[in-house]
Amino acid sequence: MAPRVSEEHLRQRRADLLKAAVAVFMERGYERTTMKHVMEAAGVSRGGLYQYFANKEDLFEAVLEERLEDSAEETDRMLEEASSYWNLLLKVMFGGETVPDAEMDPLAASSLEFFITGRNDERRRIYGEKRYDLGLSIYRKVIEAGQASGEFSDYYEGELVARSIVTFFDGLALDHAILPEEKVRVKDQSEMLVDYLKLALGVSSS
Amino acid sequence: MAPRVSEEHLRQRRADLLKAAVAVFMERGYERTTMKHVMEAAGVSRGGLYQYFANKEDLFEAVLEERLEDSAEETDRMLEEASSYWNLLLKVMFGGETVPDAEMDPLAASSLEFFITGRNDERRRIYGEKRYDLGLSIYRKVIEAGQASGEFSDYYEGELVARSIVTFFDGLALDHAILPEEKVRVKDQSEMLVDYLKLALGVSSS
Repeated sequence: MAPRVSEEHLRQRRADLLKAAVAVFMERGYERTTMKHVMEAAGVSRGGLYQYFANKEDLFEAVLEERLEDSAEETDRMLEEASSYWNLLLKVMFGGETVPDAEMDPLAASSLEFFITGRNDERRRIYGEKRYDLGLSIYRKVIEAGQASGEFSDYYEGELVARSIVTFFDGLALDHAILPEEKVRVKDQSEMLVDYLKLALGVSSS
Repeated sequence: MAPRVSEEHLRQRRADLLKAAVAVFMERGYERTTMKHVMEAAGVSRGGLYQYFANKEDLFEAVLEERLEDSAEETDRMLEEASSYWNLLLKVMFGGETVPDAEMDPLAASSLEFFITGRNDERRRIYGEKRYDLGLSIYRKVIEAGQASGEFSDYYEGELVARSIVTFFDGLALDHAILPEEKVRVKDQSEMLVDYLKLALGVSSS
C-alpha cells in the first residue's frame, strides 16, 4: 500500500510552513528574515523546518513559486470559460477584482530585495528569469486569446503589451517599496495603465 | 581678495573625483564599491577623497545629484525655446535622442540597489523621495507646458502621465538589472511607452 496518509500529512505540513514563512517575510523583508524567525512563527523545531527547506533562499523561492503557479493555473482555468477577455485581463492584473485598488502585493518589496541583491548570483538570476517568463506568460495568454477572438485589436504584438504590464507593475512595486504610499498614487497609476491598455488593445470604454 | 583660483580648483577636483566614482560604481555596483576603490581609480590619497565626501553614501548621493540636476536645468533651458513639446519630451526621456534605443542608464542598477537595500533607513528614504520628486518634475513640466500650449490633450492630468513615465522607466531599470538584455526588449518596450503617451496626450503619429 502506498503511504497515502503520510504523503498528505507531509504536504499539509509544508503548506503550513509556507504560510508561516509568508507572514514573516512580509513583516521583515528577505534580508532581515532568518530561518529561526520562521521556526518560531510556525512553532516547529529546527529539524521540522530543515526537513522541508534547505535554507532561507530555498524557502523564499518555494513561497514565490507557490503563489505564481496558483495564479498561472487559475488563469488557464479561467481562459477556458472566459466570456470577456478584457474582464479576465483585469482580474488577472488586479487579483480577482476587475478594478484597481491601492493594494500592492505585500511580498513585493521582499521579492525586489531578493532579486536585486542577488543579481550577480547565477542561480538566482536563472530563477529570476523563470519567474519573469511565467509572470509574462500569464498576461500574454490572455491578451493573445483576446486578439485571436477579435475582442482585442492585434495592432500591437500581444507579447509586447504583456511585457509592458510586467514592466509597469515592477516599477510600481519598486516605487512603492521605496516611497510613502501617498506619493506613488498606486490606484491612479493603475487606472492610467488600464487606460493605456484599452487604447492599445482597442477596447471601448464602457 | 576672494580665493578665486582655489575655489575653482576645488570645484574641478571634486568634479574629477565624481567622474572617477561614476566609473567605479558602474563597474561594481553600490554595495561592492569601497572608498578605497574610488581612491585608486582617482589616484588620490585617503585624505584627498575624504576632504570632499564623508563616506560612500555621501559620495553616491553626490553622483546621483549631479546627474539629475544637470538634467533638470537642461530641461528648464530647453522649455523656454521649445517649438515642439512632444520632441522635447522624447529628448528628455531618451537623453538627447528623440528615438528610444536599447541603452539603459549604466548607473541604474547601482541606484536600485542603493534605494532598495536602504529602504528602512530614514535618511535614504527622504533622499529617495527628493530624487523621485525631481525626476517627476522634469517630465511634468514638459507635459504641462505642452497641455497649456494646446499641443497635448489635457484629458489626463499631466502629473499622472509624468508619473507613469517614471514608473515605466523604474520597471525597465529593474528588469534590466536582473534579466539578460535580450529578455527585456528595452527598445521595443520604450517604443510601446512612446505609443502609450501619444495616445494619452493626443499626439498624432507623424
